[in-house]
Amino acid sequence: MRTLIVTDTPRPAPADVDRLREFGVATVHEAMGRTGSLGAELRPIQQGLTVAGPAVTALCWPGDNLMIHAAVEQCREGDVLVVATAAPATHGFFGELFATALQHRGVPGLVIDGGVRDTRELREMGFGAWARHVSAEGTVKATAGNVNLPVVVAGQWIRPGDVVVADDDGVVVVPLERVAETITACEARVAKEAATRAAFEQGELGLDRYGLRPLLERLGVEYVSYADLDELDRR
Amino acid sequence: MRTLIVTDTPRPAPADVDRLREFGVATVHEAMGRTGSLGAELRPIQQGLTVAGPAVTALCWPGDNLMIHAAVEQCREGDVLVVATAAPATHGFFGELFATALQHRGVPGLVIDGGVRDTRELREMGFGAWARHVSAEGTVKATAGNVNLPVVVAGQWIRPGDVVVADDDGVVVVPLERVAETITACEARVAKEAATRAAFEQGELGLDRYGLRPLLERLGVEYVSYADLDELDRR
Amino acid sequence: MRTLIVTDTPRPAPADVDRLREFGVATVHEAMGRTGSLGAELRPIQQGLTVAGPAVTALCWPGDNLMIHAAVEQCREGDVLVVATAAPATHGFFGELFATALQHRGVPGLVIDGGVRDTRELREMGFGAWARHVSAEGTVKATAGNVNLPVVVAGQWIRPGDVVVADDDGVVVVPLERVAETITACEARVAKEAATRAAFEQGELGLDRYGLRPLLERLGVEYVSYADLDELDRR
Amino acid sequence: MRTLIVTDTPRPAPADVDRLREFGVATVHEAMGRTGSLGAELRPIQQGLTVAGPAVTALCWPGDNLMIHAAVEQCREGDVLVVATAAPATHGFFGELFATALQHRGVPGLVIDGGVRDTRELREMGFGAWARHVSAEGTVKATAGNVNLPVVVAGQWIRPGDVVVADDDGVVVVPLERVAETITACEARVAKEAATRAAFEQGELGLDRYGLRPLLERLGVEYVSYADLDELDRR
Amino acid sequence: MRTLIVTDTPRPAPADVDRLREFGVATVHEAMGRTGSLGAELRPIQQGLTVAGPAVTALCWPGDNLMIHAAVEQCREGDVLVVATAAPATHGFFGELFATALQHRGVPGLVIDGGVRDTRELREMGFGAWARHVSAEGTVKATAGNVNLPVVVAGQWIRPGDVVVADDDGVVVVPLERVAETITACEARVAKEAATRAAFEQGELGLDRYGLRPLLERLGVEYVSYADLDELDRR
Amino acid sequence: MRTLIVTDTPRPAPADVDRLREFGVATVHEAMGRTGSLGAELRPIQQGLTVAGPAVTALCWPGDNLMIHAAVEQCREGDVLVVATAAPATHGFFGELFATALQHRGVPGLVIDGGVRDTRELREMGFGAWARHVSAEGTVKATAGNVNLPVVVAGQWIRPGDVVVADDDGVVVVPLERVAETITACEARVAKEAATRAAFEQGELGLDRYGLRPLLERLGVEYVSYADLDELDRR
Repeated sequence: MRTLIVTDTPRPAPADVDRLREFGVATVHEAMGRTGSLGAELRPIQQGLTVAGPAVTALCWPGDNLMIHAAVEQCREGDVLVVATAAPATHGFFGELFATALQHRGVPGLVIDGGVRDTRELREMGFGAWARHVSAEGTVKATAGNVNLPVVVAGQWIRPGDVVVADDDGVVVVPLERVAETITACEARVAKEAATRAAFEQGELGLDRYGLRPLLERLGVEYVSYADLDELDRR
Repeated sequence: MRTLIVTDTPRPAPADVDRLREFGVATVHEAMGRTGSLGAELRPIQQGLTVAGPAVTALCWPGDNLMIHAAVEQCREGDVLVVATAAPATHGFFGELFATALQHRGVPGLVIDGGVRDTRELREMGFGAWARHVSAEGTVKATAGNVNLPVVVAGQWIRPGDVVVADDDGVVVVPLERVAETITACEARVAKEAATRAAFEQGELGLDRYGLRPLLERLGVEYVSYADLDELDRR
Repeated sequence: MRTLIVTDTPRPAPADVDRLREFGVATVHEAMGRTGSLGAELRPIQQGLTVAGPAVTALCWPGDNLMIHAAVEQCREGDVLVVATAAPATHGFFGELFATALQHRGVPGLVIDGGVRDTRELREMGFGAWARHVSAEGTVKATAGNVNLPVVVAGQWIRPGDVVVADDDGVVVVPLERVAETITACEARVAKEAATRAAFEQGELGLDRYGLRPLLERLGVEYVSYADLDELDRR
Repeated sequence: MRTLIVTDTPRPAPADVDRLREFGVATVHEAMGRTGSLGAELRPIQQGLTVAGPAVTALCWPGDNLMIHAAVEQCREGDVLVVATAAPATHGFFGELFATALQHRGVPGLVIDGGVRDTRELREMGFGAWARHVSAEGTVKATAGNVNLPVVVAGQWIRPGDVVVADDDGVVVVPLERVAETITACEARVAKEAATRAAFEQGELGLDRYGLRPLLERLGVEYVSYADLDELDRR
Repeated sequence: MRTLIVTDTPRPAPADVDRLREFGVATVHEAMGRTGSLGAELRPIQQGLTVAGPAVTALCWPGDNLMIHAAVEQCREGDVLVVATAAPATHGFFGELFATALQHRGVPGLVIDGGVRDTRELREMGFGAWARHVSAEGTVKATAGNVNLPVVVAGQWIRPGDVVVADDDGVVVVPLERVAETITACEARVAKEAATRAAFEQGELGLDRYGLRPLLERLGVEYVSYADLDELDRR
Repeated sequence: MRTLIVTDTPRPAPADVDRLREFGVATVHEAMGRTGSLGAELRPIQQGLTVAGPAVTALCWPGDNLMIHAAVEQCREGDVLVVATAAPATHGFFGELFATALQHRGVPGLVIDGGVRDTRELREMGFGAWARHVSAEGTVKATAGNVNLPVVVAGQWIRPGDVVVADDDGVVVVPLERVAETITACEARVAKEAATRAAFEQGELGLDRYGLRPLLERLGVEYVSYADLDELDRR
């Protein structure tokens, strides 16, 4: 394992981060051509909170939170801490004390491919956490890892400075170089969705709005009344 | 995969659906002789909501929501949309736009053997969702499936028109032909449970109320005081 | 399987239980040298509730809640019911009626290595439940097990009278013989954490407070500016 | 749960079963339009054995093999025993003694949505077993179920008399009414695959043989040399 | 975590271990009243090997094999090494070098609630391994644990000197104090099974041999011919 | 999703690949400082085969093997095909026909974060496969992906040309730029292991060879005879 702590990593413009936070996870994911999602495994411990910010990354040994301590020092106002582990781990690597230190530095939340604890206190503090597990199980401080090298979390490659957006639907990561184009694509998607929503509220069908009837026909999908259905197909 | 869209499927009387909704999932499941439960894997994304209605079924390819669009058109006031997938899939097949279209048609909720997204918006809309996953991960519209043929969801066979009941405990399905007998059995069970609850509130024990003491004896279960317990059994 | 029901098991002093409840799961676990946690798999069905008490244990056959009925009779004011199963089981072994009977006896909650149901009602009653599953799936009463013999739940050995503490972070068990020393250790830890929290609120870093900088150095961890980073490490 | 034992169930012609066995699981599954597969969870305990036959079905309570005893009596020469459980179960429901009784009756194998044991002996006997688990964990005989009613195993609806085919790739089920058309479709597929295999052995590409190049183009897939690739895409 | 290494632990008579080895896992588990099984999760990396011996136990931190080194020294001729981890861990804690050291000391195998590697070499050496995972992922030597204190592995309490038996069906543990009674019960079971096997080979049914027909009747199980079956039950 | 097919990707010297293949997965992983392992989830379908080669990567949609067809064309003598999926998928994406085409091109094996089928035939052909699942479940050819862009498989970032090594212990990936230094480190490790093996065969202990006794002492680990052990610690 590389044992470096990297300082002074690049970050996006705060205004760009704000835009991505407003769009939310599902929109950003779609706007990037359905990429960047951390999938169904990392879940928020709270409801109704959206967090976005450039990633400060840490790679920890299972059951060892030493490198989170090193990562805290690298966090600046608005950053999101992203913690990967060298192998699957269920421990509660992170709790109230870390959240206290991070809130002092202006960090709104955490994404961790492991467990968190003190979840009640985190919710009361309004500190957002997206984690694979909730567990009281404590950690040691014995083995080296790194800070601000690229990490893989839930199948996504995340580099320091990439923008992490997290809400009730999960987490998405936007590569730093693609922030601008993603915002543009989000804007287009939001406009399109608003029009679709209005149409759906009026009763228009997706089949018509998206022009799917010819596709169904091309794929050989046929309509049949239940009354005409073969007995075998009714069962 | 059969590629049919079946129209004009049978449905139960709305009053019967209302009765089943009042009983809730656990009671209906018990009244059917402990059958019909979709088990522990499909979870609600909200708390405190009970939904019931005849199933409109859709079978989708993993990561492809084309047939949900076709299913929406088959939904009528009071129906519940039930989505199966041809193989396990974690995608967010369903979100706010679909819910908007379905609410317009009077559909109160969705059961899906896959993922949903826009969960915060769904909760705010009061649209019920029971899903195996929550994920922002988006889908394509490329591969055929079917609508209103029988499907298997979480180990249960569900046909269009079968009544789906869903609450905080999960989901249960009542075959259309068994709706009447199930309601009768539910009524009997509810009356019996009310009497049991009253007895338990007075301190009666299940051992006595259900006559279990002779069963324990027949099975060779013995009482022993901790003070008389073998050291080996205390550890 | 041993088929005994053990009566008159030992219990700790209620005041000691009260102290452990105040400390909460994470603190108790740490104070015992990071032992006793039931890990990440048993989750509460409610938020914001902490329960503690001596364990009354039951061992059930999968899908069979006969021995829970026997265990209820052994429960006294303040006890916590702990249910193990002879093999993994997803059923809803426990619901509102059991909770009614237990509340009558002064039992505040349940820890079960299986499923619960009637979760909405349990929340409304304020009866705490920590379970591996939520499922409406009902059980039979046909096979013997035991009550108040030691059980293994989620990898932890729990004997009757051992103190179970459960909150939003999960569950921890304190062996009866170690209650006193655990309270002492919790007090020390709480005092230390309060001081650390205050320091972190002032901006002190864990790296400094815990003296981790020499450890990082000993482990060969080096600092490097992003600007000086090898291209290969930036990707 | 229905508590019936159904006798004298329908069966396909043995010659048809022989044909399906020769084709194997993957071919049969494809010939049915990619349906009928029991997926990736039920695995053989042996290698290199293919079994096929009409299903005799049993539904057992978790940890209870009573109904397997009842099912043995319903098995005839060439049948395959198919065991479902009322909820997930890891027990070893089936071992050498059952296999001895079934081999006496001419049954070549078992498909079970649970566990088996005595796996070494089963392999030595040449009795095929496809199971979700291997476990020494024993069962009781206490709770009713049924025999030869339809069951769901690993998401597939299986009725008595439906043909089960099982090999190293898993298990597939052919509805009794579709046996004839499936054999015809298998023959076509086998012929086509032989031609494809011969072509591939000569170096033809799937892209050309299946005419996929226009599809790639229509989907917007473009070719680019690594030398011309954007730096961001190389990482 | 307790940080002790316990020496000179008790062991059973080698002849008793030999008897248990001959009986195998399923028989021993049944003879103990269906207890002691480590279930379906720990699997052998080889086929056809049975190992038995008194346990030398080690408790390791996830991803850290320091205590295995300490445990090796405590192993004597015929012992089986049993490794637990303080939390779930997928690493390959154990490989060819450890096996070399243990074979030198006369240890025939290992049971580990974690991963192993060098599996090809272990098979070639004839060193038995039962593990939760196979993984090349390496470990560190940084965190304390203990040797020869009781551990929980796969839900079973194992103390040093308890006899571990492992074969293709998994692993079972016999408490040291129960070795003698278990051997007696195994002998009875083996005799009974031999008689049953002979009867089954002659065509006798379990229904008759175990007297299950009256039980089925008492449970309300009825026989019905498929020809008389309700249409709804045939589907 | 990027929809590119990248041609003429870089590759290492064949002699370097040969060296890595000789070292095997565990040695390479350790030599890279315990990085690069694809963990415990991707398993070989055969035993005793080691494969190594530069990666040709493909990213497929779940249940869709279109891009594998495109990837075959990019494979050259000695390459290893590496298939990622855009979300978890259990399908059998790859079988005998693909293996036939790849063997014609000199490709020795496949690593796939999904399922394979025709496993018996693959074994008979001597074509190596490491997969997350075995399943007969077939795929469609409908949705675009890419070939020879970097992919994440089982938490590892793999770029075209990176060297993949796979054996009974799993899979490891060596970044192209680190092939030379990895070979050097492997040589050192192999020499060291041979010396250790020889020492262990003579009875030397790891505690002494690795100098671990002072570490145990520093960590506070103490030796105690079982006879002197506290009763509480014996249980």
